[in-house]
Amino acid sequence: MSKMLDEIRQQPEALSKTLKQEWKGIEKLKLQFESYPPRLIVLAARGTSDNAAQFGRYLLEYLTGIPVSLAAPSLYTLYGAKFDLEDALVVGISQSGESTDTNIVLERAKESGAFTLGVTNEADSTLAKLGHATILVRAGKEKSVAATKTYTGQLMAMYMLAYALGANLKLKDLEGLPALAEKALKLEPQVAALAGRYRFMQHAVVVGRGLNYANAFEFALKLMETCYVIAERFSSADLLHGPIAMVDPHFPAFLFAPSGVTWNPISELLDRLDGTTHESLIITDKSNKAAYDSNRRAFRIPAAIPELFTPIPYIIPGQLFAAYLATEKGFNPDQPRSLTKVTQNL
Amino acid sequence: MSKMLDEIRQQPEALSKTLKQEWKGIEKLKLQFESYPPRLIVLAARGTSDNAAQFGRYLLEYLTGIPVSLAAPSLYTLYGAKFDLEDALVVGISQSGESTDTNIVLERAKESGAFTLGVTNEADSTLAKLGHATILVRAGKEKSVAATKTYTGQLMAMYMLAYALGANLKLKDLEGLPALAEKALKLEPQVAALAGRYRFMQHAVVVGRGLNYANAFEFALKLMETCYVIAERFSSADLLHGPIAMVDPHFPAFLFAPSGVTWNPISELLDRLDGTTHESLIITDKSNKAAYDSNRRAFRIPAAIPELFTPIPYIIPGQLFAAYLATEKGFNPDQPRSLTKVTQNL
Repeated sequence: MSKMLDEIRQQPEALSKTLKQEWKGIEKLKLQFESYPPRLIVLAARGTSDNAAQFGRYLLEYLTGIPVSLAAPSLYTLYGAKFDLEDALVVGISQSGESTDTNIVLERAKESGAFTLGVTNEADSTLAKLGHATILVRAGKEKSVAATKTYTGQLMAMYMLAYALGANLKLKDLEGLPALAEKALKLEPQVAALAGRYRFMQHAVVVGRGLNYANAFEFALKLMETCYVIAERFSSADLLHGPIAMVDPHFPAFLFAPSGVTWNPISELLDRLDGTTHESLIITDKSNKAAYDSNRRAFRIPAAIPELFTPIPYIIPGQLFAAYLATEKGFNPDQPRSLTKVTQNL
Repeated sequence: MSKMLDEIRQQPEALSKTLKQEWKGIEKLKLQFESYPPRLIVLAARGTSDNAAQFGRYLLEYLTGIPVSLAAPSLYTLYGAKFDLEDALVVGISQSGESTDTNIVLERAKESGAFTLGVTNEADSTLAKLGHATILVRAGKEKSVAATKTYTGQLMAMYMLAYALGANLKLKDLEGLPALAEKALKLEPQVAALAGRYRFMQHAVVVGRGLNYANAFEFALKLMETCYVIAERFSSADLLHGPIAMVDPHFPAFLFAPSGVTWNPISELLDRLDGTTHESLIITDKSNKAAYDSNRRAFRIPAAIPELFTPIPYIIPGQLFAAYLATEKGFNPDQPRSLTKVTQNL
């Protein structure tokens, strides 16, 4: 079995541990943010962690009303730009904690007066020591080059951060997330059985909206890294603004289809794709009856999940799919070509 | 001749007009921002305009030090999120001024206490009337579905906005931009002659960094819309974080290669690509001697351009290339499949 598959399966435990072992620190952060509420949040990350940051952008803006910006690292690392970051919260996210440019952003932000927070898997890393505070992702060592359990761990950290910033979230809600990840893992036999169908797929487009927009990037990244599938990723809105001209005739589309406010535009896009030579596969759950009970090709998570809590369980079938498809294609998902675990670059 | 090609050639004039006819308004804005400096800038846009917003993010953060965030429109349109936008400047960018979701962002931002600014080509549009202030892109009616002159017009508007926000820019600098666009247009015969080489290109990757990162998205979007080329777009840093595994063996790479701080990482990436079956083409100018005088396949703009002013002239060979390649491939660049000029969606 690949390490990737092994680590995908460790996610419920990793999520539980992260929540339990970090909660005390989160309550402390909450007190601090009550006294000094940030007026702005800046998130800095690269690669998979940048997808977690993308999720954070939506989640934190949605639940806290504080504007969130994704840092453009090159402004710090190459241009040496100076920012006014008084009263800002700057968050660096990195699995290894050794991503050079993420760390530079945090250092500069500190100098500019920001409160800084590191989110990382490695307690002894540069990032963990750099920030005023740290949220440790308690996922255990990640051995596969393709990040899985650290990604969902980072999503968990974003929920915890939202709580610390005063979002209307309860500990009980977050305690339900490992169980939802467990439910998603029940799809493994189904995903394994379907992977063969895509043995010769060379292109794909992954579509997500709102809170699952980041998952579209992450699912696509896994397909690129481990299966060498050319995977485009779009929101349903952006896809209609141009790229659909190219995507329409060739690609299968993978769509995140939770219930809630994003279902309407996703459903309209599905209808539009139906009229083409396209083939779609959706990831959905029991709470979206229209999608769950339809005849569409789907990964159906056997649980009713409020949209707010879909991103962690929803990426899991995507991770499983990438791992099984890599094997079908004869690749080792643990050793993508041209990649190393820690990417240091400016 | 296609309308697209015609409109590409109109850019020097459109840029001149925009600068001249809008400058009085810009000076007025400058006075206002001196009295009420925004603590945060939020940019909202879709499609090509979103690429202009991406440029704005880098330019405005770099030159003004004010943090810039790209709005996630679905938070406004689907989730109905409420933001604290007191003392924020919220900018909507849309060629037609009728992009539903961009307009909703501006409306909501107004309700949340933001100062709002519309950047659009259409004086009578909803967007032009919606904002507290407007910068009109004086490009004349854009008839081709593929946006070209409105994109560079929007980039010009971003420079003008940077000036209004106190950036160390002079009117004289901006007055030089139409002449640089003219120099870039001199490449047309060369671009036309080279387009045939890519007749059967199905994939490409476009790479830009820093101020030209947005151009990578825009060049790729043009290739997708008008040539149906599957065009990935990355910063040199993100490319090394995973996707290079997929990109390495198959794709030609198009890279923006100005002089200045981004040349080092771009140059390193070029060296790395040289060791593969990859083929590269760079867009550069006289100020980057190493690139300009090399034997590399290149579009060489016959002018010495400080990096800060490269984005407008640098996109022009990309636009020309997309227009000529579309013709080589037997497509009509003015009528992409599945697209309409005004995209209204939520």
